[in-house]
Amino acid sequence: MSDGTSHDPVRPWRTLGREQALDCRIFQVERVTRQSPDGQKSGSFYVIGSKDWVNILAVTEDGRLVMIRQYRHGTDDIMLEIPGGILDEGELPTAAAVRELREETGYVGREATVIGRVAANPAILDNYSYTVLITGCRLEAGTSFDEHEEIDVVLRDVEEIDRMLLSGEMVHSFVALAFMWYRYHCQGMLFEGERGRS
Amino acid sequence: MSDGTSHDPVRPWRTLGREQALDCRIFQVERVTRQSPDGQKSGSFYVIGSKDWVNILAVTEDGRLVMIRQYRHGTDDIMLEIPGGILDEGELPTAAAVRELREETGYVGREATVIGRVAANPAILDNYSYTVLITGCRLEAGTSFDEHEEIDVVLRDVEEIDRMLLSGEMVHSFVALAFMWYRYHCQGMLFEGERGRS
Repeated sequence: MSDGTSHDPVRPWRTLGREQALDCRIFQVERVTRQSPDGQKSGSFYVIGSKDWVNILAVTEDGRLVMIRQYRHGTDDIMLEIPGGILDEGELPTAAAVRELREETGYVGREATVIGRVAANPAILDNYSYTVLITGCRLEAGTSFDEHEEIDVVLRDVEEIDRMLLSGEMVHSFVALAFMWYRYHCQGMLFEGERGRS
Repeated sequence: MSDGTSHDPVRPWRTLGREQALDCRIFQVERVTRQSPDGQKSGSFYVIGSKDWVNILAVTEDGRLVMIRQYRHGTDDIMLEIPGGILDEGELPTAAAVRELREETGYVGREATVIGRVAANPAILDNYSYTVLITGCRLEAGTSFDEHEEIDVVLRDVEEIDRMLLSGEMVHSFVALAFMWYRYHCQGMLFEGERGRS
């Protein structure tokens, strides 16, 4: 209990142990035992472990946005999205973005830049999600889907971004974030939270 | 396999069965068995089931943003955030926002409006996340934290939003989305994806 103003600043809990609770292939559920900073409370908490993710804002030479439509098992629905995926071990976000864009859409670009980064969901997930802008994209290769992936490529004008978001046509959280970072980027307001990484 | 352009549009998979794989208290992991639309493939997929979430953009009468700092078990770190939580069964997003704001910060506002909504993570989660704007906020009550919650209230100028995001000081995905919806709202670009809901 606290009045929210007069106590000591919030401090981290101490991890006493952790064990795998469930292997869900693309993510792991861990049961972590932790003790409160004052040592008065302890408990077990479920944390979802995952490698970092990347979402790709791919723009063609004539200002079209490379989007995809695919069936998603979480929402049990077809979603309008942008390409994205999971970073391989040790892979840079820009490298993962170039790879996933080619695999999912066959498009290849000229330049890849990290334009934003967030913690995926600090309450339950341990990973981060990057937005990478790839410019000068051209259709160059065939697609090479992961098992169970089936994807339609859809080109949209970048001017449609606000409308897609505000109309609720595009409802994917991480795509909305990619649009947000892109809007900042186009206004010359650059993401500085990732200096030295790429 | 597909060339991404010339095949039939993507269609949903058919759910053959589902079972609980793990009860994680604030979320459930389900193992869902599904068959591809052409009937050629089937497999089991892990889906995280959760009630919908709400994040609260609470602005005081003098233009300050009610933010919080709390320890998060996913990232194992102290995060700068805005208030938020899980909708109770049958609860409207605006009602949940008013409740969570009071419980976590003691602040009470004059008006609550849904200004945005996204699917939390269509690949693995089945729920949606709302952003509710609460205006005219005043400190009126004591806080009433859930078990294991410990929260510091921090007031920030709304003019700091862009800097918090672009500097990487504030990295929480759903708070970034709340900031995005608020920015649209302040520009008179209103979210239309939730007509009739509140």
